[in-house]
Amino acid sequence: MSFFPSALDELVEKFASLPGVGLKSAQRLAFYILDLPKEEARSFANAIINARENVRTCRVCQNLTDQEECSICRSQTREEGVICVVASPKDVAAMERAHEYNGRYHVLHGVISPLNHIGPDDIRIKELVDRVAAGGIEEVIMAMNPDTEGETTAKYISRLLKPFGVKVTRLAYGIPVGASLEFADDATLMRALEGRQEI
Amino acid sequence: MSFFPSALDELVEKFASLPGVGLKSAQRLAFYILDLPKEEARSFANAIINARENVRTCRVCQNLTDQEECSICRSQTREEGVICVVASPKDVAAMERAHEYNGRYHVLHGVISPLNHIGPDDIRIKELVDRVAAGGIEEVIMAMNPDTEGETTAKYISRLLKPFGVKVTRLAYGIPVGASLEFADDATLMRALEGRQEI
Repeated sequence: MSFFPSALDELVEKFASLPGVGLKSAQRLAFYILDLPKEEARSFANAIINARENVRTCRVCQNLTDQEECSICRSQTREEGVICVVASPKDVAAMERAHEYNGRYHVLHGVISPLNHIGPDDIRIKELVDRVAAGGIEEVIMAMNPDTEGETTAKYISRLLKPFGVKVTRLAYGIPVGASLEFADDATLMRALEGRQEI
Repeated sequence: MSFFPSALDELVEKFASLPGVGLKSAQRLAFYILDLPKEEARSFANAIINARENVRTCRVCQNLTDQEECSICRSQTREEGVICVVASPKDVAAMERAHEYNGRYHVLHGVISPLNHIGPDDIRIKELVDRVAAGGIEEVIMAMNPDTEGETTAKYISRLLKPFGVKVTRLAYGIPVGASLEFADDATLMRALEGRQEI
């Protein structure tokens, strides 16, 4: 039983339904909303509706956009023949922050994960194959997280793309720049050694 | 610079403006909203507006309510002559959960805190004094947190109420039930000793 007015209870419940927000935090957030000026509370509510209604996935690369095609797909200055395949829109943001890549993207919205009942048909692999099948692609770069699921997904896709004769690569594994060798884990060190390069 | 659609950026920003929510969590929450069914996103937004517009403070005790007077103040079965003074609506909820108290409440919405520039006029002390001045009150129980600010507030209020000849008490300090003596802090032990009772 609660001792708050029902409108407050409902808001607490909504916040508590968010991932990583417990009941105590949800209460704190709801009280914070009560203390906001009315317009700010309204503008928060509008931001939720606006994001949910207007953000969709790009027709071509499946990245998030508020247009039919995302700005990267519409860009005239980016290489047409290279596609970097990532698991989520956050990874596009991470790649873009590095200011090194000038090709296109493909966002899978997940990775193959049998344990979580996510199969190849549950993520946007078909859309990628269609893009490659349409021609004009020279290289597909796999940029999934270097874990079992990421590698499984990368291997699965590279097998699918083989018939089209495109070059399939993946990001290099190794010691992160600025990290200390001492604290690198065994798997990373092994990969770094395997991928050693002449200097 | 962000690489997300602006509607998503705005939502991330809103979440990040909440207390205790960092940029990474805000991003996770915003992505969660994008994945919600449309009606659920709308119902979340409505809960925000609804809480902000309909939750107000009770005319009498200043507790949160969606009516003119809260359910405790409207109740016929609760003692009229006893007021328990708390700092926040959450404390009313805590007291009610104990199922022990059957009087009325007064919610100050804060405590006197010179460091945070909160003086007696910034919290609902005047409303309490008015209630006591109106007569019919026998006892006022101070139930602020047992810290410097809580005690200062309690002392300040009890001085204000003295002229009205009401009994002013405060909650007992002591070892929490179920706690281990070994881990009780010095201040609590001192208070527990001071307040020792015959058995």
